[in-house]
Amino acid sequence: MKALGKIGLVGTLLMGGVCMAWADDPSPLSNKEAIDLVQTHADYLWTLIAATLVFFMQAGFAMVETGFTRAKNAINIMMKNLMDFSMGSIAFWAVGFGLMFGATGTGWFGTSGFFLSDYTPDGDPWVLAFWMFQVVFAATAATIVSGAMAERTKFVGYLLYSVVLSALIYPIFGSWAWGGLFNGGGWLENLGFIDFAGSTVVHSVGGWAALAGALVLGPRLGKYGRDGAVKPIMGHSMTLAALGVFILWLGWFGFNPGSTTTADKSIAMIFVNTNLAAAAGAIMAMLVSWIKFGKPEVGMSLNGVLAGLVAITAGCANVLPGSAIVIGAVAGTVVVLAVLFFDRIRIDDPVGAISVHGVCGAWGTLAAGLFNMGGTSAGIIGVQLLGIAACFLWTFPTAFVMFKVIDKFVGLRVSPEEEMEGLDVTEHGGVAYPDFGLSTHGGVMPVGAGAPAAATVGLSRAVEQE
Amino acid sequence: MKALGKIGLVGTLLMGGVCMAWADDPSPLSNKEAIDLVQTHADYLWTLIAATLVFFMQAGFAMVETGFTRAKNAINIMMKNLMDFSMGSIAFWAVGFGLMFGATGTGWFGTSGFFLSDYTPDGDPWVLAFWMFQVVFAATAATIVSGAMAERTKFVGYLLYSVVLSALIYPIFGSWAWGGLFNGGGWLENLGFIDFAGSTVVHSVGGWAALAGALVLGPRLGKYGRDGAVKPIMGHSMTLAALGVFILWLGWFGFNPGSTTTADKSIAMIFVNTNLAAAAGAIMAMLVSWIKFGKPEVGMSLNGVLAGLVAITAGCANVLPGSAIVIGAVAGTVVVLAVLFFDRIRIDDPVGAISVHGVCGAWGTLAAGLFNMGGTSAGIIGVQLLGIAACFLWTFPTAFVMFKVIDKFVGLRVSPEEEMEGLDVTEHGGVAYPDFGLSTHGGVMPVGAGAPAAATVGLSRAVEQE
Amino acid sequence: MKALGKIGLVGTLLMGGVCMAWADDPSPLSNKEAIDLVQTHADYLWTLIAATLVFFMQAGFAMVETGFTRAKNAINIMMKNLMDFSMGSIAFWAVGFGLMFGATGTGWFGTSGFFLSDYTPDGDPWVLAFWMFQVVFAATAATIVSGAMAERTKFVGYLLYSVVLSALIYPIFGSWAWGGLFNGGGWLENLGFIDFAGSTVVHSVGGWAALAGALVLGPRLGKYGRDGAVKPIMGHSMTLAALGVFILWLGWFGFNPGSTTTADKSIAMIFVNTNLAAAAGAIMAMLVSWIKFGKPEVGMSLNGVLAGLVAITAGCANVLPGSAIVIGAVAGTVVVLAVLFFDRIRIDDPVGAISVHGVCGAWGTLAAGLFNMGGTSAGIIGVQLLGIAACFLWTFPTAFVMFKVIDKFVGLRVSPEEEMEGLDVTEHGGVAYPDFGLSTHGGVMPVGAGAPAAATVGLSRAVEQE
Repeated sequence: MKALGKIGLVGTLLMGGVCMAWADDPSPLSNKEAIDLVQTHADYLWTLIAATLVFFMQAGFAMVETGFTRAKNAINIMMKNLMDFSMGSIAFWAVGFGLMFGATGTGWFGTSGFFLSDYTPDGDPWVLAFWMFQVVFAATAATIVSGAMAERTKFVGYLLYSVVLSALIYPIFGSWAWGGLFNGGGWLENLGFIDFAGSTVVHSVGGWAALAGALVLGPRLGKYGRDGAVKPIMGHSMTLAALGVFILWLGWFGFNPGSTTTADKSIAMIFVNTNLAAAAGAIMAMLVSWIKFGKPEVGMSLNGVLAGLVAITAGCANVLPGSAIVIGAVAGTVVVLAVLFFDRIRIDDPVGAISVHGVCGAWGTLAAGLFNMGGTSAGIIGVQLLGIAACFLWTFPTAFVMFKVIDKFVGLRVSPEEEMEGLDVTEHGGVAYPDFGLSTHGGVMPVGAGAPAAATVGLSRAVEQE
Repeated sequence: MKALGKIGLVGTLLMGGVCMAWADDPSPLSNKEAIDLVQTHADYLWTLIAATLVFFMQAGFAMVETGFTRAKNAINIMMKNLMDFSMGSIAFWAVGFGLMFGATGTGWFGTSGFFLSDYTPDGDPWVLAFWMFQVVFAATAATIVSGAMAERTKFVGYLLYSVVLSALIYPIFGSWAWGGLFNGGGWLENLGFIDFAGSTVVHSVGGWAALAGALVLGPRLGKYGRDGAVKPIMGHSMTLAALGVFILWLGWFGFNPGSTTTADKSIAMIFVNTNLAAAAGAIMAMLVSWIKFGKPEVGMSLNGVLAGLVAITAGCANVLPGSAIVIGAVAGTVVVLAVLFFDRIRIDDPVGAISVHGVCGAWGTLAAGLFNMGGTSAGIIGVQLLGIAACFLWTFPTAFVMFKVIDKFVGLRVSPEEEMEGLDVTEHGGVAYPDFGLSTHGGVMPVGAGAPAAATVGLSRAVEQE
Repeated sequence: MKALGKIGLVGTLLMGGVCMAWADDPSPLSNKEAIDLVQTHADYLWTLIAATLVFFMQAGFAMVETGFTRAKNAINIMMKNLMDFSMGSIAFWAVGFGLMFGATGTGWFGTSGFFLSDYTPDGDPWVLAFWMFQVVFAATAATIVSGAMAERTKFVGYLLYSVVLSALIYPIFGSWAWGGLFNGGGWLENLGFIDFAGSTVVHSVGGWAALAGALVLGPRLGKYGRDGAVKPIMGHSMTLAALGVFILWLGWFGFNPGSTTTADKSIAMIFVNTNLAAAAGAIMAMLVSWIKFGKPEVGMSLNGVLAGLVAITAGCANVLPGSAIVIGAVAGTVVVLAVLFFDRIRIDDPVGAISVHGVCGAWGTLAAGLFNMGGTSAGIIGVQLLGIAACFLWTFPTAFVMFKVIDKFVGLRVSPEEEMEGLDVTEHGGVAYPDFGLSTHGGVMPVGAGAPAAATVGLSRAVEQE
């Protein structure tokens, strides 16, 4: 007994000794904290790499827009894309991010976090990583509009627009749908609205603002004839346009999966859905254009890719890959019809931005409810439709009023002479391609040695053959 | 004694109490699981970021191919690259991935996993991440062919080809070399075949299919003269071609190191090898062209980069950096000679795809055995040669037969009139650069103000001076 | 008592049993090691992904430089950018990395690690990851010079320069500022010099070498008139130039935050600072050019982006976001004035490299001291100024001497006839755009159908209006 007691004591002392040694060494508790920290580091990494990919979409939009428009306006397209991102960054830092994600808010918009005031040097830098990810989304919404307003918009007017959109229009709706990431939650979000990466929050906001802009501006000179004819205005570089679409597809691999803002297994399905929807959209748009116009048309095919990407953006995390293919395929079909529709009602959209981002953004948002993995219901679809409607009812009127105000005070559209000469010269004092002789066709029909008389390109020719 | 016993009891109770408390707190076991999970998250992250980089190679191939061919076919090149990826994605989702990596298989091809059926919503999403990584590899193989078949291939024929390659030809050989990642292992793999990222599986498959296609098509009009002369057909944009090569080099930093599909220290050496091989390939190709043609030629130099990258792809994980330089240097030399060779035997390859991907893919696969870090042997080299041969004996005949069948049923080559006019107009109803006057030289000799009479560019001129 | 003793013994035995079982299971110690390893894996991942982004800046520089120069020299720009990276990679592998980071060193340069000899197959691969990250920085410094020396430099001379810079000039200064990462620490670093990602180490080294090169070369033919006039020489593609700037902005998201070489929370603020500085630089450069020249000019605006990026590079980790905006804004202003200044003193810099990288690199380095988060002081500013001066006093004379030596032995500048004809033909036997008729203006004034008589573009026109 004495012996047993002695052994017991010795054992306990050994245990105690080991325990005391552990106080300086790692413990399960300290290890748990360390593991969580490594995971947090991975979250930062993923969120910021994704933000980098989405940033590059600015280049993609610039290339698509300039490829689909005439050489005499190429500098203007570069300047608009460069500046809506630069000015948008400052506007979103100063005002927009707070309205969208302020730590305090009304449920309709945030009321703090302006000038990134939610960040202090000793505080949690996560708000900085999150800002970086969100600013490139805001910039995407802003730059969507530049394509629809191309070739006839005053540069100053465009700058003013991009500040107002990045500071006010975009973030306020964004707060309704995503604001809960920091504060109590936007009202739309709290109803269960599904828009994982922004078919509505980003793309439809851009699309409906684009619609407002195109309406206030009016069509380009020579675009529509008296007898209802639609004259093709051909883009100057199908290679830059295609490069732009590839860059956008690349960036979308940050746009959609990055919206988890965590490095975890769920990003895999989002990647797959994104890719399949884009592929399906491209194929369907190509087939539809082939059927309607007799040839597989490049402008429609390229926009089919974008349509698929926009459409999967809402449901990329809650639909299965097979559904992603359907969603993308429908978008690829819808975008062709939408482009033709807007030309038929004489709303001139040089790159199809309203169709790609507005219309397909709405489809994608609806689809996220229809194809929800856990099953759909009238309630789910109802909330989706409510969000689609709320976005339109907020964005379109406010953007329309904004464009009207800009038009009244500084002028939104250039003069006909300026439009004919080209914005590069009149707005920027430059020429994009001074080494190359430009043909004299004024962009309506090509007249150059080696170019066949029947050649056309881009979105417009399709309509001519309709 | 009683005291000792009491202490022993109390000590044990304390220990037990602590243990029981630990049941709710982290334990070393629960921590180990958590650590493994964070590592897994990092693996997902790396694999999918790498897949994103490889995706962007589609844009790189499009830019290289269009830069090296004439402006009148630029839209066609964009459409082919866009569609071989889009259609290939769907084909690989439906059929190809299962044949290559099905969880069950015969050792010669997989027999499950079609339509991504290996994935269930509650199951492990790793198969999705792996699919995403693999689909961009399949697409790389498919798009290699478009360059060799450029400027004279019917678009429909090309679409059919890309489906068959992505669904059947590529994945079946891939299953022999890589299938073991999911099932019992392909026969070639089980012999110890080294092809870490696909010098053979991807690049030679693409290269030999390209050879088959070029043979079935025949050379472009005007390429070869009666007396054995080779006429230069110059590419329309050396800047787009160079941009394309930079993009491919960038993408290869996903292609090679991403093939670990794990985030670990081994990716470092793969990065270094990839970069050094590309640099060495560029330098050697430039030097060889300088010696042979009297000037450092841009087309050869650009292809030298690609040759080095293709060649290091097989052994990037099992050779030392010094060896990578040698492997790349040899590839940069070989590619110049191969390009000249194929022209000499009148196989017209507008971009040098057969030389870059087929020939240098074979060299790289052999080199992975020759320069193996652990030492080489007759057995190792034998298996490499076996794999090279097996790839050729599978790919070339099946691709040849496929192209013949396509030719018979839908036609593979456009008519001479269509070829002269340009595929952009005839296949797609478009013009790539309508704002620019094209010179009348038909792409054979430049006739434009400011362009010197003796100017030539690209791969062809070199041969003329030979 | 006996019972207590028995319980004590049993308890101890249980404890001991559990402990012995733990010897095979994870323990807090083994878990700690595993956690550290996962973090290390994340560090590798981030460092190499960042290196990939910085690599892509080679493409960005190529596009900016060719966009800002004439079409007849486009191939030459592609070759110089391709080769300064390829030859620089080999030179940095062989010599440069050891001089900069050798495990042993003098405090003035490293003395080991040549040919990556610090790496052994069984050793820590971190040196490989670090080399990969550093080689792309060295290449950035080297390629900065090609723009300033564009349109009149002998290709052989340029190749020699890039080897010397990558092997000697760049790494020796780099060792003073960053060498401590491996050895005892460079002397400048040990004084507390702040240059987190290289405003001085990379950009000023490139900028002052560019200055030396431009001086030794002399201005392009026709650039400066007898009466002090500055004639515009317009770049041939504002779209490629803009694409290049977007690519550089993208790459900078690897350049600055990647310089932590660890995956942790600190990268967030670096991302934010980088983006805000670029945006501010773009806006200010646009505004300054608007005020000075009457229109928002694209060449200046694009260089404003780069100026902001270069300027934030030194202090990106130790200044607050609000300061980043100021730093970028000042850089955007300074760059416009600097470009005009160098033209005034007749130093011809076709792309503004000296202004962007040299001058703004110096400003950024000073700003890192001025805006230091923890407060500034005369001592801090003094060390910054010392580093700026040391960089100039090392780089400019050595580069000048090198260029003089190259000029003496192989010749640095092409003949006037070669310069007029264009380097693509004379150095490379090629034509960049053979399908397009080039206008006859020789790059001075555009003469093409549709191009207005008063049109100008790029950096030069601004001066004409001055």
